This record gives sequence, structure tokens and C-alpha cells, in this order.
Amino acid sequence: MNQERLNNVLESMKAEGISQFLVADPMAVYYLTGAMLNCGERMMVLYLCTEKEPQLLIGKLFPQNEEALGIHVTYFEDTDDYVGILAGMMKEEGTVGVDKVWPARFLLPLMGKLPGAKYVNASYIIDLIRQIKTPEEQELMRAASACNDKSMGELIPLVVKGLTEKEVSEELLKIYLKNGAQGHSFEPIIGYGDAAADPHHETDDSKGKYGDAVVLDVGCLKDGYCADMTRTVFIGKASDKAREIYEIVKEANLRGIAAAKPGARFCDVDRAARDYIIEKGYGEYFTHRTGHNIGMEVHEYGDVSFTNENILKPGMCFSVEPGIYVPGVAGVRIEDLVLITEDGCEVLNHYSKDLIEVPVEE
Amino acid sequence: MNQERLNNVLESMKAEGISQFLVADPMAVYYLTGAMLNCGERMMVLYLCTEKEPQLLIGKLFPQNEEALGIHVTYFEDTDDYVGILAGMMKEEGTVGVDKVWPARFLLPLMGKLPGAKYVNASYIIDLIRQIKTPEEQELMRAASACNDKSMGELIPLVVKGLTEKEVSEELLKIYLKNGAQGHSFEPIIGYGDAAADPHHETDDSKGKYGDAVVLDVGCLKDGYCADMTRTVFIGKASDKAREIYEIVKEANLRGIAAAKPGARFCDVDRAARDYIIEKGYGEYFTHRTGHNIGMEVHEYGDVSFTNENILKPGMCFSVEPGIYVPGVAGVRIEDLVLITEDGCEVLNHYSKDLIEVPVEE
Repeated sequence: MNQERLNNVLESMKAEGISQFLVADPMAVYYLTGAMLNCGERMMVLYLCTEKEPQLLIGKLFPQNEEALGIHVTYFEDTDDYVGILAGMMKEEGTVGVDKVWPARFLLPLMGKLPGAKYVNASYIIDLIRQIKTPEEQELMRAASACNDKSMGELIPLVVKGLTEKEVSEELLKIYLKNGAQGHSFEPIIGYGDAAADPHHETDDSKGKYGDAVVLDVGCLKDGYCADMTRTVFIGKASDKAREIYEIVKEANLRGIAAAKPGARFCDVDRAARDYIIEKGYGEYFTHRTGHNIGMEVHEYGDVSFTNENILKPGMCFSVEPGIYVPGVAGVRIEDLVLITEDGCEVLNHYSKDLIEVPVEE
Repeated sequence: MNQERLNNVLESMKAEGISQFLVADPMAVYYLTGAMLNCGERMMVLYLCTEKEPQLLIGKLFPQNEEALGIHVTYFEDTDDYVGILAGMMKEEGTVGVDKVWPARFLLPLMGKLPGAKYVNASYIIDLIRQIKTPEEQELMRAASACNDKSMGELIPLVVKGLTEKEVSEELLKIYLKNGAQGHSFEPIIGYGDAAADPHHETDDSKGKYGDAVVLDVGCLKDGYCADMTRTVFIGKASDKAREIYEIVKEANLRGIAAAKPGARFCDVDRAARDYIIEKGYGEYFTHRTGHNIGMEVHEYGDVSFTNENILKPGMCFSVEPGIYVPGVAGVRIEDLVLITEDGCEVLNHYSKDLIEVPVEE
């Protein structure tokens, strides 16, 4: 059990008037306990209460080392009334915080057993705490992005090797493993040519051709934390139009980063990047939000969109990834992760954003 | 929209007094509409009402061909109050059936918007209908198992090729694709020696050695339906003790199958297999239920356990897979799928259950 994180959650529960909290998302449980408990369809609940010690309720098929975990564990069999066991641990009244992912097959019977309680989605309590990375987490985010930068340098030369997008993705996995990461943090987007102009493209069996833009949106998972960056490079030669688009996206990326500082809002970062693209006449071709929060998961609570008016705070980590996608011309996206500091932000990616034309071998 | 399946569900809703049903499990929606709609974290609901036409509520990111789907589609944007849009479609009172997988982040706000309704987990309505395979589905189940039988014949010789468990699993995928399947129906369990004696073993980088039992618990996905079978073979030579265990498991498998007929209960099948293993003195080494229902998903609603007193009906399809796992000696499991017929059952797997010792090449 990570006592500091637990205390933060309990403090926040008290402030919100939530006396009990059923944490069920494996990643949230991992954040608090250090144990990754994937129980599939079976119920698994970390029960937190502002007046009692925490308890883990889990199936007998998943034996835990109670001492190492530092938390009392109650086991159930598949044939037990496990929701009833949970209800038996709980107070009958007050506000019960429920994990956002908890399914109806557990929630509805619990509500039937404890009808006097009030039920609310309380995941935001942990999500808001997870938004602020501790110094240790910041180090891990830096290390993951450093590995991603190094790997990008080894990845880019592969785009002229005649490999399919899927083959490039497989080679990238080998590069990550060699560089000390444990794998991809998400299925990478490798997009040649027209595919680069589709921001939702799924990596397929296409190969690149001379003049193609190649979007490389990639991230590694290293020691439990996620990297995520995008560079767009060109096979052989970029057209004049593609060059123009590239420079606009690069400037939008820099403006978004410049707006990322404590006290500003998420939407200010989006606007800084988006307004520049609009000003240059490409607004309709920037079809997604500017970024998303990241940490133990590649998409965490919070995003850099024009509707998110939440305030940036030191320790928050998110992507700044504007793009312009003009079908038949070029698609370009440039993405870095930033970490909000006391007076601005630290950019976690250091790989060059200069336009790269990868020479085609004869 | 599959009108026959929809009508069955609406009939059952009326019989159960459930006037509205929010279907959210992508597989259940697929069963009814023929469309596989995976929307990740975003809400997706097929709204059924005994008094109105069905409606699909889905994010704008997932455009549908309304005509081909044969159902009215309502779209929402990420910034919309999509739970409010759903509530606006619904009647304010009566019993609302909720899908078992529907998460608290949607269910709790809906309950706040329509506090006059009663909410119940209604997934069993579709699950019970899915338990009974139509003649067309039965053909697809037969075809998937025929492919699995054929593939088993090509898989078994690989156990003496010096491959790791993972490599065998990869070769099996190639065999499935060659034989017309679309992939694994689940991550296969390939267990050499001690791993064979662990029924929850995860396929790893181990290699087999002379005398090992090898558990091959494998299934393909073919045209939307799942196969699942287990054979246990021996590298070179089985020990006398392993032979004894093998023959007991084989007889238990046959006794379970003999008990599978309409009017019997699931627990009768379990007992028939289990009692024989107990009688032979190995009861403590048969540590799991005898089987599970199967169809579009490898684990469907229903199981062959000693607590399930539900009655077997024609069209039901499930596995019969007793096993004996004696650490340090041998682990053996033999599994077939059966389909309940009018007067007994049809065994979908035809691959031999005789003890196979795979000769080791010099």
C-alpha cells in the first residue's frame, strides 16, 4: 500500500463528503497498492472508508501476499454471494463513491442490499490525484520519453527500407526492448502518404513511396509509465506544399508548448496551437483536440481541448500534438509530452523537430 | 437487425415485466444487429422498448449505415450530454433492464435523471436466448470444431520439434489461418511437463523434454464462432502413472458426455465426470468445473459445475473437460464440445482420444 497516495485519497474523500469508496479499476488499485490485479469478469474491490482500515475483496483464485500488500484481504469463492460479503463490510448509510468502471452486475445488487446509501461516481478523486505526478513519477516519465527519443532516432531510417507499416511497427518493438522499455505503450500509428493524412489511421500492410509524408506516432512503456510522441518525416523529398504545412504544424506545436504553464487553462494550450493553424488557413484540417493527459496509462483523465477550462498545475503531464491533414497533399502531426513546472513547462521529448527528408537508397 | 432474435428478446422482456432494455455489451449488440460496434470508453447503447422501435445511440465518430443496419441511429458528440439524450428517449417509469457490463459512469447519472424507474440487470434475457443455438449457428459451431480437429492433427507433431510453448502457439495460429479460421478464439494453453499439471498455466518460453505430458488446450475463431478442445499427448513415452491418469480422465470425459442430454441438469454432467475421478482416488486433483457454455464467445452464460441446476435443452453447446493435475507426476485434460440434441448430444470434436506418444526424432 502506498500510504501517501492512500492518505491523499482519504483526505479528498473527506473533503467531498464521500465516506466509502469502492475502487475497482485495476489501474487505480495498482496506483494505490502497487499490485496489478486483473480478475477478468470476477469482482475485485479495494474498499476504502474514512473511518476504517482499507480492505481488499478478491476471488480465491487470486491469492495475495497480505503482508507484502500491507492491507487486509478477504477472499470469496465463485459460488459465494460476494456482493453480500462486500455489503457486510460497508456502512449502510452515507455517500458511497463508486468506481466509474464498476459494472451494473455488481452495482445494482449492491444498491439493492444497501438501499439507504447514496451512490456517486467517485473516480475523479483518484484521477485528479493521478494527474499530478510526484517527483518519482516525473523521473519515470522523463526516462520513458528519453527512451522514446532514442528509439525515434533508430526508427526513422527504417521508413525507406521498403517495409510495410506493420513491419515498421514490429521493428520498433524490437528497438524498444533493446533500449530498456517493456513494450509499446499503445499500438503505434505508422502512416505512409495518404494514411498520414488520416489521423485515425490503423497501421496496415501499405508500403511507402517517394515523396510520402510518414507519420510516426509512437510510445514505449517503461517501468510502468508511458511515453508518446509523434514525428512526421518524408521519404526522399517533401513537396513545397508539404513543407509549408510542416512548418505551420511545428510552429503550432511550439505555441502550444509556450502556453503550457501553471495558472493557464488546458483550453489555452489548445487555443494557442489551434488559432495559429486557423490563422494560416488550415483550421478545418486540424480535426482533433490538441492533447491528452498521460502517465501510467497513455490516456489519463484530462485533455487539451477547447472545452476544458481546468487550470494547469505543476506536476501535470500531457501531450501537445497539433496536426494538419490535407487528403491528397500531406498529413503532418508533431507531438511532444510536457510536464508543468513551477513557472512553465519542461518538454520531455528532445528529438529534433526540424523537417527530415530521409534519403532513399539506390 | 436480426428480426427473429429481436422478437425473442422483446417477448422475453414482456414476460419478465421489463419494458425498456439498454443493451451495451458489444457482443450482445452484434448478436441482435449484426454490427460489431466497439466504441472503447465512449457510450454505445442499443435501446429496446416493448412499445417503440429500437434505437441505437452512438458517438459521431462511429458513423453507421442506417439503412443496412435497419434501425434508427442517434449520434452524439463527446461534448454532448449523451446520458441526457438517452434519458430523453426513455419512459420515466417502469422497469429498466440494464446490461451487466454497463459501467457506473453511465448508469449512475441515468438513475439521477430518471429516478422514478426501477433498474435491474437484464443481460440474462439475451444470454438465455444465446444459449440455444439456431440451426445456422449449430452449423457454424460444427465448422469451427471441424477446423479445430484438423488443426490439432497438424499441431501434435510440433510438440517434439524443440519449440517453446509460445513458438508452438504461434505455429498454431498459422495452421488456423491456413485452415480457414480467422485466429485463436482464446490464448491457447500449451503446457509441457510441470506446466501441464497447472490448469491455470500461461504459455511461456519453456521447452518440452522426453516423457513430458503436453496439454494442448486450443481453439480457433471461424466465421464468428468459437471452437475449444483439449488433448494431452506425451513426448516419447508416458510413464505408467501418467497412463493410468490418462485413462481415468478419458473415461470421465466419456461419462460426462454420456450424461449430456435434454432434461438432465448441468450439474449432472459435472457429477458424472467428477464422481468417476473421485471414485478412482483423484478427486482432489480435479480442481475446476467440468465445462462452460460457448458460442460467439469462448465463455458464454452457463457452466457445467456442481452448483448449476439448470436444465439442458436442445441447441445448448458447452465443453466437457475434466482433468487430473498431479504435480511432479502428470497433468492431463481431455476436452470436447457437445451440442445438446433432441435425445442426447452431438460431440463436435472427432479427434482421437486414444493416448498418443509422439515419437522423438533422432
